[in-house]
Amino acid sequence: MTGSSLTPLLDTVGSPEDLKRLSRDQLPALAQELREEIVRVCSVGGLHLASSLGATDLIVALHYVLNSPRDRILFDVGHQAYAHKMLTGRRHLMPTVKKEGGLSGFTKVSESEHDAITVGHASTSLANALGMAMARDALGQDYKVAAVIGDGSLTGGMALAALNTIGDMGRKMLIVLNDNEMSISENVGAINKFMRGLQVQKWFQEGEGAGKKAVEAVSRPLANFMSRAKSSTRHFFDPASVNPFAAMGVRYVGPVDGHNVQELVWLMERLTDLDGPTILHVVTKKGKGLSYAEADPIVWHGPSKFDPDTGELVPSNAYSWSAAFGDAVTELARLDPRTFVITPAMREGSGLVEYSKVHPHRYLDVGIAEDVAVTTAAGMALQGLRPIVAIYSSFLQRAYDQVLHDVAIEHLNVTFAVDRAGIVGADGATHNGVFDLSFLRGIPHVGIGLPRNAAELRGMLRAAQEQPGPFAIRYPRGNTERVPEGTWPALEWGTWERLKPGDDVVLLAGGKALEYALRAAGDLPGVGVINARFVKPLDETMLREVAGRARALVTVEDNTVVGGFGSAVLEAVNRMGLRPTVRVLGIPDEFQEHASVDSVHARAGIDAPAIRTVLAELGVDVPLGV
Amino acid sequence: MTGSSLTPLLDTVGSPEDLKRLSRDQLPALAQELREEIVRVCSVGGLHLASSLGATDLIVALHYVLNSPRDRILFDVGHQAYAHKMLTGRRHLMPTVKKEGGLSGFTKVSESEHDAITVGHASTSLANALGMAMARDALGQDYKVAAVIGDGSLTGGMALAALNTIGDMGRKMLIVLNDNEMSISENVGAINKFMRGLQVQKWFQEGEGAGKKAVEAVSRPLANFMSRAKSSTRHFFDPASVNPFAAMGVRYVGPVDGHNVQELVWLMERLTDLDGPTILHVVTKKGKGLSYAEADPIVWHGPSKFDPDTGELVPSNAYSWSAAFGDAVTELARLDPRTFVITPAMREGSGLVEYSKVHPHRYLDVGIAEDVAVTTAAGMALQGLRPIVAIYSSFLQRAYDQVLHDVAIEHLNVTFAVDRAGIVGADGATHNGVFDLSFLRGIPHVGIGLPRNAAELRGMLRAAQEQPGPFAIRYPRGNTERVPEGTWPALEWGTWERLKPGDDVVLLAGGKALEYALRAAGDLPGVGVINARFVKPLDETMLREVAGRARALVTVEDNTVVGGFGSAVLEAVNRMGLRPTVRVLGIPDEFQEHASVDSVHARAGIDAPAIRTVLAELGVDVPLGV
Repeated sequence: MTGSSLTPLLDTVGSPEDLKRLSRDQLPALAQELREEIVRVCSVGGLHLASSLGATDLIVALHYVLNSPRDRILFDVGHQAYAHKMLTGRRHLMPTVKKEGGLSGFTKVSESEHDAITVGHASTSLANALGMAMARDALGQDYKVAAVIGDGSLTGGMALAALNTIGDMGRKMLIVLNDNEMSISENVGAINKFMRGLQVQKWFQEGEGAGKKAVEAVSRPLANFMSRAKSSTRHFFDPASVNPFAAMGVRYVGPVDGHNVQELVWLMERLTDLDGPTILHVVTKKGKGLSYAEADPIVWHGPSKFDPDTGELVPSNAYSWSAAFGDAVTELARLDPRTFVITPAMREGSGLVEYSKVHPHRYLDVGIAEDVAVTTAAGMALQGLRPIVAIYSSFLQRAYDQVLHDVAIEHLNVTFAVDRAGIVGADGATHNGVFDLSFLRGIPHVGIGLPRNAAELRGMLRAAQEQPGPFAIRYPRGNTERVPEGTWPALEWGTWERLKPGDDVVLLAGGKALEYALRAAGDLPGVGVINARFVKPLDETMLREVAGRARALVTVEDNTVVGGFGSAVLEAVNRMGLRPTVRVLGIPDEFQEHASVDSVHARAGIDAPAIRTVLAELGVDVPLGV
Repeated sequence: MTGSSLTPLLDTVGSPEDLKRLSRDQLPALAQELREEIVRVCSVGGLHLASSLGATDLIVALHYVLNSPRDRILFDVGHQAYAHKMLTGRRHLMPTVKKEGGLSGFTKVSESEHDAITVGHASTSLANALGMAMARDALGQDYKVAAVIGDGSLTGGMALAALNTIGDMGRKMLIVLNDNEMSISENVGAINKFMRGLQVQKWFQEGEGAGKKAVEAVSRPLANFMSRAKSSTRHFFDPASVNPFAAMGVRYVGPVDGHNVQELVWLMERLTDLDGPTILHVVTKKGKGLSYAEADPIVWHGPSKFDPDTGELVPSNAYSWSAAFGDAVTELARLDPRTFVITPAMREGSGLVEYSKVHPHRYLDVGIAEDVAVTTAAGMALQGLRPIVAIYSSFLQRAYDQVLHDVAIEHLNVTFAVDRAGIVGADGATHNGVFDLSFLRGIPHVGIGLPRNAAELRGMLRAAQEQPGPFAIRYPRGNTERVPEGTWPALEWGTWERLKPGDDVVLLAGGKALEYALRAAGDLPGVGVINARFVKPLDETMLREVAGRARALVTVEDNTVVGGFGSAVLEAVNRMGLRPTVRVLGIPDEFQEHASVDSVHARAGIDAPAIRTVLAELGVDVPLGV
């Protein structure tokens, strides 16, 4: 710690214990230092800037009041917790966030004893907190449990349903509702409107005795918060508005200023001592303290590389798969009035900003509620539309039953545009989309396609609009090449495509894995490459032909080897009574930590060099160094 | 139609059009006739009696007011819709309900144009209704949409999340909230408490103009409902209670008497004409009109065979798998203080009535919220408990991501007691548990066991309490044999068991399928049988040994052949570089309609005769007629 440090206070804080040695007066300055350091850390690009800035004050307050790791602090989604990482001994590792071998971008139990849950997906913190509070009581222990959940995560049904049981069970816990009017996009839905109308309510009146006394003890300062909240332009006093939290049996306090760290400390000290569940509603600003991030928190949610002083983003000319989907569907909806696109709170991520402007009446954002997205599509399909659910692979996991029960049984015409399929890289285990081939393949009626480029994506989207039944089109995180408007290549349903002749060893792959297969095959004689663009239905005609002739088949997929494309091929050739040698390459049966996509693929053994090694093992004469 | 008919009015109603020819005065008598016929139909056992009786009046009113099939009437879960089936031309087929080739026990799009959705799982009706209303508006059509949802289904997060978007989008629809204080068990949770406290609220005030006028037009008679509701002992006027529905932007009316069919008609005529979404909160009695069913609606939810006059149930001495689980876990919790059992609203079905009484502090019912059940267990496991989630296979589908994201990534100690695994028979496609081996197997870290009897179930439960990481124990609907208290057979983790020697053709099967395999093998020489009780991890040592020696392997499973146990064996022997002949027997890649379990298994080709046929095809000398 030197006098010239940019972070004189932060330099003294290596742990939550150190934090408690600061006086309350020093906390605002500490929070400011944390924010400045977060901006520097995030300027390398790809990190969660805006939400981390917004949550810094409340995180300082929580760690000042609670005793982590004994007390448990849970962060919903976990991407807002950079200040938490820095206050719990990981400050020096912040430059490694999301890098191979470095810190996770989320909280992760195996990373630190201070990380209460491992997350990435939204809306799970309340059920986890309930479980922890019940475990504590069942085992006769007495630590405290606090969950921090954004208002966006509260649109997830799971969070609402957990609240239902939390209100019922009445266990002691604090829920900090971090209200920034944002998930990643602006929030949607009635709950959001309601939140906008929330006022400082009378505390829940049912509790008598100790609880009531405690309420009275804090009621005077609350009046101050109330008047402040009322004077703020974005809050209003609406006599018709009511409080569903209180109605569910959860004590409600708020809204209070989520950037007044001393007041937060004062309140949390009292609220964490109350019996039963309490919601503290804090209002924060996403991007707090950084003018350009406050002004546009959507862009600054997870910005690419930027200059921390000017806020100038390093431009990129890449054309993402998401953009290719967005462009295609914007055009498709002009051609086909039955097209309707649904997103669970991923307008930006799924490339739908333009679509939502051009076709506002055929666009629906249901909030972070993947199950609702899929079943709403089912209702639309039943009534004559051709809805497309744009969804990340790892989030489609949250609607498995809705795909099966609401869409597949009646063979409804719903298309799933499954983005971020395969290894996503920096976001790690929670976000990898390496299970969809396995879980979708087991559901009857659901077709699965893997386009190799934007043109084939368009061909599949268009063909799916005419084909009966559900169809999932999976494509990876990353970039592809632009195609001209009006590109709608014809596609024969369920057919594969022979891209390179060769009958000795045949590589079967679709999507991202096909790139690797082509590169590995190069112009090796005898090595064939097939674009296995349909995983269901398989092109059994072509498969039978190659399996009957080839000495060996090699399947390559950016999906778990358990039950995926390779298994589909094994099942099919076994049914055909053929017994070729089959080498199944894919993601091993283990969660893959964050690292670059290339690195994970190399480790998994599905990239071009790995495929070449397998070809060599199979006796193909592979020249060295190619 | 004769004068001596028990159902003179009902005899005149073959369709919703016929219904509209009756005068309003006749509707109560018609409803009574429907109820009496429902009791007769249900006395054969296994049907959904109590909820169908409770919903009869509101169904009569809906069909009197709306024009199905043009207007869409959606029934959440669909098991309360017997009166709907009878009023839409299917009365003569009611004796076939749940029988092979007969009517479904739920609503089913392919069964009738009057069935708006295909269901079985709870909480899906609101998202479907939203989709339909948006499709209607997008296509410029003008039919009406009405969803009937029980208060139990409203504890499902998906319904709450759908309400969030419904309130936001403001599309015209009627939601009939059928409040009978029940799902199958008594409802739990804060929403239930809240519902109990609901009063007749002021209508949502934000709407101006036409909506507001319409509100005034119906406000007088509402005052009557209000005074009636208030005079009823089970309603109370509580000034602290508030209305979250109105807060979410959904017009709220109620509670009204759900058995006054004429008043329901009067109200629905008006409410279905209002713009925007409206909730009509009706209070009904499960088992309405049948004294013994009203008195004990849990028993009479889906009673076994009974005398319709006396209500005497035909006794059964069978010992179900669910009872075996309940007994085991009640005992286990005495031995192990870390045991904690969680159910998503299935106390009775999962055999947990006794457990919940003996261990009330280590028992949690989270309502119909499977995702919350699993993630609450994760929170408990993180804090030192050994939670067991008791859940039906087809409902575990609703928590796929929670198993993966909240439990498996951190390798948490959660046991899943997966009941109703495999074909369930009469409940049909929505309830068959034939996907769990496929979807669980693809998730890293999750072990899967298939006990062959109650003793092995206990062995697995006990072993799972000591083993690190998640474990799913799957067992079927149906019966097993009792075992003495204290039965805790030792079980070597991940091992198979050779039950019958034989190295020519070896049958590999676990659980229910093992029964068939043993019966098929009889004492055929050369035919071996292995109890493949672990599907993950496979017993690779034993598999390698038999695969290297046998002429053929036959895998048998009560699960889809896509990605299931057979695929696990194919993957493993392929990895081992072995190429035995493998015949994979299981449920074909198609949804299986309702029929007896035996019948579906015979059709699927996994029962003993089917296995014998396969053995004969493989050249085993199978004596005829055995």
